[in-house]
Amino acid sequence: MQFQRQIEVRTNGRGLVDLTREVAACVRDSRVTSGLAVLFCRHTSASLVITENADPSARGDLLDWLERVAPDGDPRNVHDAEGPDDSPAHQRSALLRTSETIPIAGGALALGTWQGIFLAEHRHAAHSRSVLVHISGE
Amino acid sequence: MQFQRQIEVRTNGRGLVDLTREVAACVRDSRVTSGLAVLFCRHTSASLVITENADPSARGDLLDWLERVAPDGDPRNVHDAEGPDDSPAHQRSALLRTSETIPIAGGALALGTWQGIFLAEHRHAAHSRSVLVHISGE
Amino acid sequence: MQFQRQIEVRTNGRGLVDLTREVAACVRDSRVTSGLAVLFCRHTSASLVITENADPSARGDLLDWLERVAPDGDPRNVHDAEGPDDSPAHQRSALLRTSETIPIAGGALALGTWQGIFLAEHRHAAHSRSVLVHISGE
Repeated sequence: MQFQRQIEVRTNGRGLVDLTREVAACVRDSRVTSGLAVLFCRHTSASLVITENADPSARGDLLDWLERVAPDGDPRNVHDAEGPDDSPAHQRSALLRTSETIPIAGGALALGTWQGIFLAEHRHAAHSRSVLVHISGE
Repeated sequence: MQFQRQIEVRTNGRGLVDLTREVAACVRDSRVTSGLAVLFCRHTSASLVITENADPSARGDLLDWLERVAPDGDPRNVHDAEGPDDSPAHQRSALLRTSETIPIAGGALALGTWQGIFLAEHRHAAHSRSVLVHISGE
Repeated sequence: MQFQRQIEVRTNGRGLVDLTREVAACVRDSRVTSGLAVLFCRHTSASLVITENADPSARGDLLDWLERVAPDGDPRNVHDAEGPDDSPAHQRSALLRTSETIPIAGGALALGTWQGIFLAEHRHAAHSRSVLVHISGE
């Protein structure tokens, strides 16, 4: 059994958007009880990460850390056609995930208690982002 | 054909735990000869990495590097409810992998010669960690 | 339906090699119209990344950034049996991807417009690298 749905996300610029509910709805609608949910982010300046879903300060620290690891406006970046956040957005996408695969058990995503699924927008401007959800199983 | 088993790992605090044998045992027990093994780490302060399995100094350097990339006690981290290794554990989890997918060929994991599958514990305290193994194929 | 093919890549030392066409050819040859393409890099000093396929300067900046994040010859690395790029190659592999999963829709990889699939060679010497492509679906 296979099921595909594209989730469209409107971001408000740099930050994390929680997709957990929308992915869970895909699993429900697929009627798959045991299988896999594959998430695929169709961009190179936005990406996926599964991280702490409870305390917003954990996510704030994750974003601040990305600023330190791949800072905007680093003069060593050459590719700035779209601005000082252009290359850093690709670098952060390379550091986080383009695809993520989550097992389905008992008809639900087998996430741990503290795991949320997030789209990470790496550009400062608001964007429309597409995440393809592919579910397979029984 | 589908098979799921949760591997429970007791860590001794920060470090890498080799899961290769336990994952290989799952493949054997699944009787899948051609397919996929998906590993999913159900935590946000521990993660997965496939790296050099031969010389322990390679793994030591990987851990030391993570200390430099996401240092404990960085005063710019706000989220320290569980200690100075709280946010760095989430940051390191975001840098390594939550899920990893390994093809199965000829009834075995299609790992390269030098590849081992490791759970990376990012907290200093010992923890119980769960890794879900989902196998599908023929 | 399942299909496996190993892609052999001859690298010219450190850099990115575009595999998009060869992976697309696997999808075509598999005759799968809806499913998943899993890529698995069988090495610990080379890895995969899906990134910007248009402007070479974006890829140049990505490589330069990896030099800053995991520099060659860092005196804190102990494992240098194969040279000053030995441990940095493992560190960069841990930062990028060992496996990547791409949905197939309408008989083609569901990549975004600007996404290319690249093998990242992290060693300075030329190497032969193997990427296993596993396709499943209908």
